[in-house]
Amino acid sequence: MRSYLSILLLAFALPAHADTVAEVSSPDGTLKVEVDVNGEGRLGYSVSRKGEPLIGYSRLGMNLRNGREFLRGLKLDTKATRSFDETWEQPWGERRFVRNHYNELRTGFVEGDRDHRRLDIVFRVFDDGVGFRYEFPKQPRLDEVQIQQELTEFAIAQPATAWWIPAYEWNREEYLYTKTPLSEVGTAQTPITLRTEKGTHIAIHEAALVDYAGMNLAKGEGGRLRASLTPGSVANVVRRAPFATPWRTIQVADRAGGLVESSLILNLNEPNKLGDVSWFKPSKYVGVWWSLHLDQQTWGTGPKHGATTENTKRYIDFAAKHGFRGVLVEGWNVGWDGDWFANGWNFDFRKPTPDYDLEGLAAYAKSKGVHLIGHHETACAVSHYERQMDEAFALFEKLGIDAVKTGYVCDAGQIERQDETNGPVVREWHEGQFMSNHHTRVLEAAAKRHIAIDAHEPIKDTGLRRTYPNWVSREGARGQEFNAWGNPPNPPEHEPNLIFTRMLAGPMDFTPGVVSLKGRGGQVIQNTLARQLADYVVLYSPIHMAADLPEHYEQHMDAFQFIKDVPTDWQDTRVVNGEVGDYATIVRKDRNSEDWYLGSVTDEEARTLQVPLSFLDAGRAYTAQIYRDGDGADWKTSPFAFVREERAVKRGDTLTLKLGSGGGAAIRFVAK
Amino acid sequence: MRSYLSILLLAFALPAHADTVAEVSSPDGTLKVEVDVNGEGRLGYSVSRKGEPLIGYSRLGMNLRNGREFLRGLKLDTKATRSFDETWEQPWGERRFVRNHYNELRTGFVEGDRDHRRLDIVFRVFDDGVGFRYEFPKQPRLDEVQIQQELTEFAIAQPATAWWIPAYEWNREEYLYTKTPLSEVGTAQTPITLRTEKGTHIAIHEAALVDYAGMNLAKGEGGRLRASLTPGSVANVVRRAPFATPWRTIQVADRAGGLVESSLILNLNEPNKLGDVSWFKPSKYVGVWWSLHLDQQTWGTGPKHGATTENTKRYIDFAAKHGFRGVLVEGWNVGWDGDWFANGWNFDFRKPTPDYDLEGLAAYAKSKGVHLIGHHETACAVSHYERQMDEAFALFEKLGIDAVKTGYVCDAGQIERQDETNGPVVREWHEGQFMSNHHTRVLEAAAKRHIAIDAHEPIKDTGLRRTYPNWVSREGARGQEFNAWGNPPNPPEHEPNLIFTRMLAGPMDFTPGVVSLKGRGGQVIQNTLARQLADYVVLYSPIHMAADLPEHYEQHMDAFQFIKDVPTDWQDTRVVNGEVGDYATIVRKDRNSEDWYLGSVTDEEARTLQVPLSFLDAGRAYTAQIYRDGDGADWKTSPFAFVREERAVKRGDTLTLKLGSGGGAAIRFVAK
Repeated sequence: MRSYLSILLLAFALPAHADTVAEVSSPDGTLKVEVDVNGEGRLGYSVSRKGEPLIGYSRLGMNLRNGREFLRGLKLDTKATRSFDETWEQPWGERRFVRNHYNELRTGFVEGDRDHRRLDIVFRVFDDGVGFRYEFPKQPRLDEVQIQQELTEFAIAQPATAWWIPAYEWNREEYLYTKTPLSEVGTAQTPITLRTEKGTHIAIHEAALVDYAGMNLAKGEGGRLRASLTPGSVANVVRRAPFATPWRTIQVADRAGGLVESSLILNLNEPNKLGDVSWFKPSKYVGVWWSLHLDQQTWGTGPKHGATTENTKRYIDFAAKHGFRGVLVEGWNVGWDGDWFANGWNFDFRKPTPDYDLEGLAAYAKSKGVHLIGHHETACAVSHYERQMDEAFALFEKLGIDAVKTGYVCDAGQIERQDETNGPVVREWHEGQFMSNHHTRVLEAAAKRHIAIDAHEPIKDTGLRRTYPNWVSREGARGQEFNAWGNPPNPPEHEPNLIFTRMLAGPMDFTPGVVSLKGRGGQVIQNTLARQLADYVVLYSPIHMAADLPEHYEQHMDAFQFIKDVPTDWQDTRVVNGEVGDYATIVRKDRNSEDWYLGSVTDEEARTLQVPLSFLDAGRAYTAQIYRDGDGADWKTSPFAFVREERAVKRGDTLTLKLGSGGGAAIRFVAK
Repeated sequence: MRSYLSILLLAFALPAHADTVAEVSSPDGTLKVEVDVNGEGRLGYSVSRKGEPLIGYSRLGMNLRNGREFLRGLKLDTKATRSFDETWEQPWGERRFVRNHYNELRTGFVEGDRDHRRLDIVFRVFDDGVGFRYEFPKQPRLDEVQIQQELTEFAIAQPATAWWIPAYEWNREEYLYTKTPLSEVGTAQTPITLRTEKGTHIAIHEAALVDYAGMNLAKGEGGRLRASLTPGSVANVVRRAPFATPWRTIQVADRAGGLVESSLILNLNEPNKLGDVSWFKPSKYVGVWWSLHLDQQTWGTGPKHGATTENTKRYIDFAAKHGFRGVLVEGWNVGWDGDWFANGWNFDFRKPTPDYDLEGLAAYAKSKGVHLIGHHETACAVSHYERQMDEAFALFEKLGIDAVKTGYVCDAGQIERQDETNGPVVREWHEGQFMSNHHTRVLEAAAKRHIAIDAHEPIKDTGLRRTYPNWVSREGARGQEFNAWGNPPNPPEHEPNLIFTRMLAGPMDFTPGVVSLKGRGGQVIQNTLARQLADYVVLYSPIHMAADLPEHYEQHMDAFQFIKDVPTDWQDTRVVNGEVGDYATIVRKDRNSEDWYLGSVTDEEARTLQVPLSFLDAGRAYTAQIYRDGDGADWKTSPFAFVREERAVKRGDTLTLKLGSGGGAAIRFVAK
């Protein structure tokens, strides 16, 4: 018999004594995970690194809508370990080969005195981090599982500084990063990046967010972060056993750059499900975009309509002349006129506007060796879009359009879902389970038509590009358009923040390369000219835009040369130096040549950085084509102070990079 | 036509220019509220006090599940103001007469270019605070309203210190209060109490939580607190227009005590709906309770069963002898044996255990002028309880049992709801809409039987005792039982915290008076003896327990005298001094005599407080019966150092109170 008192005692008298029931270390022993069950049958885990606490005792559990929670009365029933070591090849990416090396611990828990329901927890421990997930096995007394909350904690064991953006807000992911003590974090999106007092860097995120709600982190007492699932219109998650949750990930590194170099998120995703994806070509594009944000042209039809046949031809010609594969055209289809924002159900994804000769332009582009890039803004009428997308993708495939930028512009919690043709429309959230599944449906439909997806206002990236390589990039963060009209525009520290936070999740279509350095109404972009070039290297994406207007590039042909040259597919990537939010220097080797590229960016502080060229291949001579800040370069006073110069270099040399405030450097090391 | 750019601009380019469309000041002009609409048609408000910003520009809005949000495109359609000044009488309470004096501003908004839906916002501005709520009028294009989130903000205009407990946790409301900078608040329950750098005290809470989800506060950027509704099993709130939300309240005072003296929460509730409630008698009780928490007895049957006929008779005799009206008996009914915590559906609220002669005991009590107090622990099988409660209350009424302690012991989010007899059981949250309605159903069913309700693990108090006076008290905070077995037990600062935080919401059944100062296994209670007496005055409740065992009172008859004397119904209440979490001295005048009572409590710091007796009635002589800490009193070293003494006093005298660490003082001023 269980007394009222013992329940109260167990419920409130924390911390209860907990026994370690299983443990597992990383291949080289750096990281160790312990799994605990306390006297009440509550599960917990902790992580140590080099013998020191990294994640203190943290709870695990599940709160269900349609059944008693998995929280108490659990006991270890089975445990098993295995080791895994494999090197796999990315079809494209920031590196060609990825090593996936971990030790795994699978723990099976069963309820003691209740319904004998089962819950497994699986840990994969890498030398640079930990992933763990819950798995609900097939079992007699638990079929449909409606999850209201995941009771997962991450108790950061040391005081830390945090870089984060808030969750559940109006503008989805498009925030400036905030730097606060960990204790001042509110409810944060992931990845959240932390640096402990002792200098250890930690990023908490998730991998393989499939058919589940996105995880946010709410701060509890002290340094305790708690999972907070994105809401759903009924339960936050509805699944049928057996199933597994996404992986909850903890990446760890001494250097900030170590987080960037980690492949843990990709490794925790399933291998490519699409087979041959060689139809996608990493490449760069231009298009009708910056002019819209400058308010020189409009998405809707009328005298300023950007997506006209004439205007698009101009971009096709420009792309062909300068070697860009793609031309994006936004506002090409029917539905933009009127209050599109209020009613995405008016969009037609199969019908161009009368002033846009879609078929003619596709043929014209093809004749020039250029490919139109499609655009599908849904304004969050997602079910409406799903009903049209098969036809829309078929149309694009027919016309040789093999990449589409999708969009979900509306407030958080305003995704429109209508399961039956005439059923009620209910609202969902960008980061919820419904959208997780929507994106999968889009990827699968697009893949059938050999179309790549670049999503604006998407669900967050959790490495799914491994499984669905056609999810090539996302605009899920504050991009260049904020430099056109944002108040404030992106500050100089923005890319040094993105590199060590958002970009840990995966590629971003930042739309760099605004060499005119001016936004709408002359708003000043807080960058130097060289910085706009550096972005192409430091921000990884297999598709990158040359975002500025053709006429602006004509005025900066020296700088434009780098944009024309820089690849978007890499053999290898290394972070030479950097601190979160301050600066970063990244080098990448071209996947299709022996050339290396370097990008370096700084915040508002001017810096002189020494870069040992130890990454260059031994015994080979290079010409360094250097695009750098000139003397006195400074985003405020002298943004166009810019030098292009060449030097002969080799492995073992050291380059001195002088970056102005808001500045940068971009270098192509041409192998001889 | 609305351009994509203008939408983006409006969505992201904050702060947008906003126009003040309406304003209203408090009766004496201290507080002023401004209501704004910005260029995008977003609503906001701000509050100033004595010309200084108190609440900076804060957003208002509603996120719906089944329709477009109320967020943009709104314009002011109507506005009206009125003044109200009334003094009403409480049937019992901390003061007999309450003045309700405010200026009201009603603003009616309509959507411009969409569905012309309407939303009203009503502000009531008192000299000591502001209440505002949303009202959904009856209208053609909005009938059922499913609310996912209220987009209400409270942007605290100055840096502040916060006292708060976390929301969405396992243990509902039973937390120790945390003191942090406002910037370090996580997601907090209300009331949350703040003190700005300039010394202004602010409490944010809500009033009249009826048929709605409880509001928590999530910290956004800086000092911005955002409404976060407690989840529901479908939408967080489902209502049919017309309806109004609870009042969102902002109480303000220079002194901490000013918050305690405010009647704003009660004033924003509807008047008594129950008519004559003179059948409830404010009073004190004893019972089978502390012995259970000491683990000397058990709730379940067996050799240690507490709720036996024999044991209960002993308590009835003790109550009769010492003038206590009530005897609470927990564990009297069928269902406690076995794993009750896991299955509240086994409880029978109509059947006593075989060793408990319910009818005989009720008759025996009656013969002694004593009333049994009933106990209904549901273990959160709420729908099960609802099916039995009418019969259960009828049974109690028949037996003269006119007060019931209800209970909802389970984890957050594990309330069991089953709408149809054989439909699925879904989980709800203690502070969600379903429980809001459940408590109303219980109150109405109990009122029909002239039964008062004292709820353990309830939804938070929002002043509903004005409307349903039979909701006499609640155990919704960390009470004395934590001194029996809590780890840690309540620290000395606990009551100084409660007084200025939780108690702003309403009465609490703290179960004071453990004069033995020991918990389970001899755990030390962090109080002096005099402090246990002071709690009866500083913590308001119309029912208070003398919680200790009869045999312990027999050993402290001098202290026990105060517990016997102290009333639980008051003519008036004033806070003499106090600081949040540090100390407090409260005086109250007995409603049924001319006597005054004083209670004073301190945290771990020993203090000497000067108390001018300016509250005593002029021209009257009093004998002060003083129960105070003796020399060297200290909870750690000398908790039983205790003095009872008498002094002749009158208005204009000053008393010096010496409080030891964890100490207190209790005084009865007997009017001659």
